[in-house]
Amino acid sequence: MSTENQGSVGIVSAQTAHFSEPLPLRAGGSLPAYDLVYETYGTLNADRSNAVLVCHALSGSHHVAGLYEGKPKSAGWWDNLVGPGKPLDTDKFFVIGVNNLGGCFGSTGPMSLNPATGKPWGAAFPFVTVEDWVDSHARLMDRLGIQQLAAVLGGSLGGMQALAWTLRYPERVRHGMVIAAAPKLSTENIAFNEVARQAILTDPEFHGGNFYERGVVPVRGLRLARMIGHITYLSDDAMNDKFGRKLRHDTPQYHFDVEFEIESYLRYQGDKFAGFFDANTYLLTTKALDYFDPAWEYGGDLEAALARASADFFVASFSTDWRFSPKRSQELVFALLHNGRRVSYAEIDSEAGHDSFLLDNPQYHAAMRAYFKNIEV
Amino acid sequence: MSTENQGSVGIVSAQTAHFSEPLPLRAGGSLPAYDLVYETYGTLNADRSNAVLVCHALSGSHHVAGLYEGKPKSAGWWDNLVGPGKPLDTDKFFVIGVNNLGGCFGSTGPMSLNPATGKPWGAAFPFVTVEDWVDSHARLMDRLGIQQLAAVLGGSLGGMQALAWTLRYPERVRHGMVIAAAPKLSTENIAFNEVARQAILTDPEFHGGNFYERGVVPVRGLRLARMIGHITYLSDDAMNDKFGRKLRHDTPQYHFDVEFEIESYLRYQGDKFAGFFDANTYLLTTKALDYFDPAWEYGGDLEAALARASADFFVASFSTDWRFSPKRSQELVFALLHNGRRVSYAEIDSEAGHDSFLLDNPQYHAAMRAYFKNIEV
Repeated sequence: MSTENQGSVGIVSAQTAHFSEPLPLRAGGSLPAYDLVYETYGTLNADRSNAVLVCHALSGSHHVAGLYEGKPKSAGWWDNLVGPGKPLDTDKFFVIGVNNLGGCFGSTGPMSLNPATGKPWGAAFPFVTVEDWVDSHARLMDRLGIQQLAAVLGGSLGGMQALAWTLRYPERVRHGMVIAAAPKLSTENIAFNEVARQAILTDPEFHGGNFYERGVVPVRGLRLARMIGHITYLSDDAMNDKFGRKLRHDTPQYHFDVEFEIESYLRYQGDKFAGFFDANTYLLTTKALDYFDPAWEYGGDLEAALARASADFFVASFSTDWRFSPKRSQELVFALLHNGRRVSYAEIDSEAGHDSFLLDNPQYHAAMRAYFKNIEV
Repeated sequence: MSTENQGSVGIVSAQTAHFSEPLPLRAGGSLPAYDLVYETYGTLNADRSNAVLVCHALSGSHHVAGLYEGKPKSAGWWDNLVGPGKPLDTDKFFVIGVNNLGGCFGSTGPMSLNPATGKPWGAAFPFVTVEDWVDSHARLMDRLGIQQLAAVLGGSLGGMQALAWTLRYPERVRHGMVIAAAPKLSTENIAFNEVARQAILTDPEFHGGNFYERGVVPVRGLRLARMIGHITYLSDDAMNDKFGRKLRHDTPQYHFDVEFEIESYLRYQGDKFAGFFDANTYLLTTKALDYFDPAWEYGGDLEAALARASADFFVASFSTDWRFSPKRSQELVFALLHNGRRVSYAEIDSEAGHDSFLLDNPQYHAAMRAYFKNIEV
C-alpha cells in the first residue's frame, strides 16, 4: 500500500437498491416505487452490529468517502473523517452513505422518470421530509440486514436526520450523532431559504419546475441560491481572514466585474454549483429543512418530543457557526439531558463557521475519534 | 394646531438646485451638470450657524420629515426624529435632507436624461462614491449660504457620509453624527451586496442597465435584492419574536406559496421595493458602500485617516445590529479618541437589529435629544 493511500477507503463504487413497495409520505400520498443509491465502506461484522449510517446535508450525497475509479479528484465529502484509522474507522465500522430521496445524485428525485408519465418528475415530485428520508433509509437498512445501527451520524441537515432516526426508530439506533445542527430552523434560517427558493422559482428558465424537457436549467437562480448559502456557511471572521477587502487589481476599477476577491469566490461557487445541482432538489431540500421540527406536534415542547429517544448522543457545535449556532445545539443537549439521555457535547473552537463540520479541525476530529473509540463493538 | 400635528414639521415640498459646473468624480471623469433635490425644515438663523444636514441610507431620500400635500401616508423616513420639539428640534435647527446623486428620487441619476444622448443615462451613469456625494452636498450648502454645518447626521450609509464630511470638509462641520455605521464594509457586508447585485445584473429584464427604453423593469432582481437586504436589517431575535415559525395556515400545506409568515413578509417587502426603486440606483449605491474606506489611502490605518477631522462626534450603535455591529462603531470611536477628538458614544439596547436607527427607541432618542440640546446655538 502506498503511503498516500493510507487512511483512504480507496476506490469505491455506488450501488442501487430498488424498492417497489410505496413509501407513505408525511405530506400525504406516497412515492410509488423508488431507488436509493448508496455506498458502503468497511465490513459488516458477523452480528451486524457495527454499522454507521452517515446522513448528508443540502448539497451532499451518498459519496461520503473514497475515490471513483479513474477520478483522482472525486474524494467523498467526508473523506477526512471516514477511512481506515480515521476518526470514523472503517477497520472497525461498516459505514453507509445514502443519497436522499428527492436528490439529484442517483436516488429517485425530480430528475427521475415519473412512471405515470414517462417524463421527468419535475415539479410533480412530491414533497419529502426528513422523516420520509429516515423511513426510506430504514428500509435500506432492512435490505442490508441491519436491524440496529451502532450510530447514525450527520452534520447540518444530516444532523437533523440523525436526530429524527432516534425519534422514529429509537430501538434501531444506539448512538445519535448530531453535528452543527438544530432541533428546528430559526426564522432567519427560513428567511435565507426562502430568498434562495425565490431566486430559483422566479428564474424564467425554471418553467414551473419542468425545465428538463426544454433542455434548459435555471442557472441564474441556482447560482444566487448558492451564493446566499455560502455566506451563511462561512463566519464573518473567516471571510475577513480569507478575503478581507482584497481587490483583484491594485486599485478600484469602478465596474461590476469582480472588484473584491470575495465577489470572485462567490461567483465561482455559484457557477460551479449551478453546473451540477438540480434546482428542484434544491427547492425540496430547503423545504424539508424548513418543515423539520419534532417539537411541533408537542406544542413546541422539545423535551416532550425527545422523550421517545433511547439512544446515547454525541452533539457538536462550532463557535462561529451562525447558521446553527452553539445555542441551538445546547437547546437540544438540555432537552435530551432532561429526558435522562446520556449526552456528550463538544463545543468546538473554530473560525470556519458552519462549514467547520466538514473540516478536519483537530479538536473536533479528536472528539469524534474518542466517541467512536468508546462505542466500538 | 391640532394635537395630532404637534411635533410634525407639517406639509413640506421638495426643491431642486441645478448645478452647471461639472462635478469631478473619484472614479475619474466628471458629471457635466446635475440637479440636487432637497427639503428643508425649520429656519436658518441669522448667522447661518444652526444648519443640520441629514444624509440618507440605501433606500432613503431627501424626504426626511413631514408630509406631502394631500398624501397623509407620506411621512418622511426620519419623521419620528425631526420636528418641532423632537430630538432633532426644528424650532432650534434648520434641517436639510438631500437625495444623493445616482438616486431615483429627483437628484440626477440613471433615470435622468443624459444630455449627450437625450436618453436616460442607464448603465452609462458614472460610478459615484460617498466622497462625491459629500462634494455635491457641499456645493448645495454653498448655494444655501451655509459655510459651516452645526452637524452632519446619518444612519448606516448616511453615517458614512457624515464621517466623510468630517474628513473632506473638516472646517465645515462642527459635529459628525454617525449612527449604525462602520468605517468600512466587512467582507460579509460586501458579499451580501454582491449577491443582491448579481440578482439584478442577471435578471433578463435588466438589459445591461438600459431597460428604461424597453419599458421593462428588472423586478425579479430588485425583489431578491431587497429580500436579502431585509434579512440583514433585522436581528435573528427580532425575526424570531415577530414571526417565529408562524404558519399562514394551521398545518403545513407543502407547497411553494407562503407557508411561514416570514416568507410573506419578505415577499411583500421585495414586491413593494421593486415597485418604486431603480435598479441602477441600487447597483450604484451598493458599490458606493463597498468602496467606502477612508483608511484605504493610509494603508488601512484608520487612526491616520481620521487625523484630518476636527469635529466633535456622536456615535451610536445597536446591540443586535449584525450588519454594522457595535464592534464596528467602537473601531471608529477608538480611532477618533486616539486622535484627540471629543466623542460621545451610545451603545443602545435594541432587539430590532440594524433597522433600529430608524425607530424611536426611547434610550436612543433620549441620547440624540441630549446631544442636540448640548449643541444648540
